[in-house]
Amino acid sequence: MNETLRLLLAHRSIRRFRPDPVPAETVERIIGAAQAASTSSNIQAYSVVGVTDAGAKRRLAELTGGQRHVEQCPLFLVWCADLHRLQLAGRIANPAFALEPNVETFLLATVDAALAAQNAAVAAESLGYGIVYIGGIRNRPAEVTELLGLPQLVYPVFGMCVGVPDQQPDPRPRLPQSAVYHSGRYSDDDALEAAVREYDETMRSYYARRAGGGRDTVWSKEMANRLSGANLRRHLHDYLLAQGFEFR
Amino acid sequence: MNETLRLLLAHRSIRRFRPDPVPAETVERIIGAAQAASTSSNIQAYSVVGVTDAGAKRRLAELTGGQRHVEQCPLFLVWCADLHRLQLAGRIANPAFALEPNVETFLLATVDAALAAQNAAVAAESLGYGIVYIGGIRNRPAEVTELLGLPQLVYPVFGMCVGVPDQQPDPRPRLPQSAVYHSGRYSDDDALEAAVREYDETMRSYYARRAGGGRDTVWSKEMANRLSGANLRRHLHDYLLAQGFEFR
Repeated sequence: MNETLRLLLAHRSIRRFRPDPVPAETVERIIGAAQAASTSSNIQAYSVVGVTDAGAKRRLAELTGGQRHVEQCPLFLVWCADLHRLQLAGRIANPAFALEPNVETFLLATVDAALAAQNAAVAAESLGYGIVYIGGIRNRPAEVTELLGLPQLVYPVFGMCVGVPDQQPDPRPRLPQSAVYHSGRYSDDDALEAAVREYDETMRSYYARRAGGGRDTVWSKEMANRLSGANLRRHLHDYLLAQGFEFR
Repeated sequence: MNETLRLLLAHRSIRRFRPDPVPAETVERIIGAAQAASTSSNIQAYSVVGVTDAGAKRRLAELTGGQRHVEQCPLFLVWCADLHRLQLAGRIANPAFALEPNVETFLLATVDAALAAQNAAVAAESLGYGIVYIGGIRNRPAEVTELLGLPQLVYPVFGMCVGVPDQQPDPRPRLPQSAVYHSGRYSDDDALEAAVREYDETMRSYYARRAGGGRDTVWSKEMANRLSGANLRRHLHDYLLAQGFEFR
């Protein structure tokens, strides 16, 4: 064990924050750590928009589905996949350069944003801050794009609240490692199903134990709900096309 | 400063490894740290296939474009976006459940894989190991899928070599923070262009300084090359459709 491993294992999402602002030099340090993450062939295909203005955070809280912590956190980071800066760089090298948006470039930029963001999350937690990722930034992406002035070939992948925690939630149990880690070859369905059923029981006890308790569900049921209806953000495809991305 | 921040800032990709195997309990610890990363609504939509067999690593080295370190590293991790396990979980809850693959679910699974992988990278480095991400796993994804027995709705996002470093490369400078971090609103193109030109000069000196030196290029030129030709993996779209993903 070491300090870093302990920190990684102690992660839990924070949704209540104290009002203390995050000092500029701390933001710089967190973004510096994000920049140190791996990036495919050094393309660095991501951007971060940092929001501290109360009005803008209030609007973002609305746009992400009324999540109060988006307004309450002192710093809201919007992590974006960014091919715009690469388009601009390509044109410096060669005025005729035209970036070809396809699944691969979409993926490169999305992954770069995620790797950088996760480093930022770890850095923030190492400094005593708490974070939560906000997938709800994709609820109304066109309005977020307008609010933050995102150009073509940039889209918000997720938001992230950052601030001093004002709660200490329990860590949530994860799937048995056997369901996630496959040695040499992907597991067969019987083994997976056994692991999911075991996890259903783990989550049943976890929910029963929680303060306020009584939530009577299991993981498999939650997943069936999570992956249906409005949660599927069926508008995302057309938004991304309008933003200049292509899936081909 | 703290131990974790120092570790994050000291990251560099390692492409030469000592033969020492990674003990099973260390792999468990690294994957445990990966599992502690944030995941959208606890969906945990990723899997990792760990490869240590010499023949399989040799084949993977070929499939990723002849990268010797893929064969040489003692542990090669293939990070996969995984909707298959969620499909299976949904059916446990409701036998009629059918997962609807779209851009949102593709994105959820890809981001989950990336967040978990980056935690694993940090954990491995905290334990004295080195890593490098291998985007080349997407060069011949159908053959990787066959080799690892990946079911429908699972695709390899990237590989990762893990092992004790047998080299100490210099860290590569990154873009000026002003190009990546935007306060309140996305920067205008003049500011971005100035930052890219500044970075071109930084990289020119960096390449000139390097052992073996004399590489005469700048970042913008590299990016114009990187984002064209075979690097665009134009086969990826059809592979993903064949694997059950959809872009709609």
